[in-house]
Amino acid sequence: MGWFSKDIKSMNDLFVHQLQDIYYAENQIVKALPDMADKATDNNLKDAFRSHLTETKGHVQRLENVFRMHGVEIKGQDCPAIDGIIEEANEVAGEVEDKTVLDAALIAAAQAVEHYEMTRYGTLVAWAKQLGREDCAAELQKNLDEETAADRKLTSLAEGAINRRAA
Amino acid sequence: MGWFSKDIKSMNDLFVHQLQDIYYAENQIVKALPDMADKATDNNLKDAFRSHLTETKGHVQRLENVFRMHGVEIKGQDCPAIDGIIEEANEVAGEVEDKTVLDAALIAAAQAVEHYEMTRYGTLVAWAKQLGREDCAAELQKNLDEETAADRKLTSLAEGAINRRAA
Repeated sequence: MGWFSKDIKSMNDLFVHQLQDIYYAENQIVKALPDMADKATDNNLKDAFRSHLTETKGHVQRLENVFRMHGVEIKGQDCPAIDGIIEEANEVAGEVEDKTVLDAALIAAAQAVEHYEMTRYGTLVAWAKQLGREDCAAELQKNLDEETAADRKLTSLAEGAINRRAA
Repeated sequence: MGWFSKDIKSMNDLFVHQLQDIYYAENQIVKALPDMADKATDNNLKDAFRSHLTETKGHVQRLENVFRMHGVEIKGQDCPAIDGIIEEANEVAGEVEDKTVLDAALIAAAQAVEHYEMTRYGTLVAWAKQLGREDCAAELQKNLDEETAADRKLTSLAEGAINRRAA
């Protein structure tokens, strides 16, 4: 999209733009998760990242369904937010020496990613309903539910043992 | 911090790093909110941004308390995540023509900011407790509670009328 043009003219345009944004984000997360799983020391955390990678690939497919259902081209849109969140995660991870502290840092980074996705899906579900696209809303809600569950799982891993070991 | 050094050696270092990150983020949000209030058309949304600006200035002060309580220098740390979230907000806002659609876009952008803060404060509260800093945890919890309330208020504004008008 052009910097000086006003390409978003309707609520539908805004919905499609946001859909392209989260599609790009999910694809970036698919690329980032294997590295996070490799860096993790705790086996439960490694498993959580790996199983979330499988889920995330499913989110990409579900988004492709939504593009199709809505009759628009499947494409991504650069998303400086997720790029920033992942850049920050890599930066912090690169500065942590201790393995158990790194696990705590990785969880925090992953939760920042989950929260970004939760807010975007929350918005997309609301907008889809407003546009009368209950079918799209239902698909997007499934992704939202899985992101919310992933975030809770990370909290329970952190509170269960990882933060205690790190401190 | 250096790119090739391992400056985070302990859970305490990680806590301080994250504190510096959110301190930078809150200060960026103080700069961004007046512009968002100016761009908003809906008067309730304008008011919400303005009152959240006052709250955000309070969050900066509370963070300064936490730095002091913890006995570390008050300073920020570049945070590519919040920079990306704000950049994306400006980018999208710049592309929206219709005033009511712009209001919906501004709410979505503000909720992405709130979610970023919620995840960071959630982590900081957990880490402060793990480090035995109940005093810091209590201060950070106050910011977390206000961010959560701000996010809910934005949802109710969106669902109340703004999305409907936009669609």
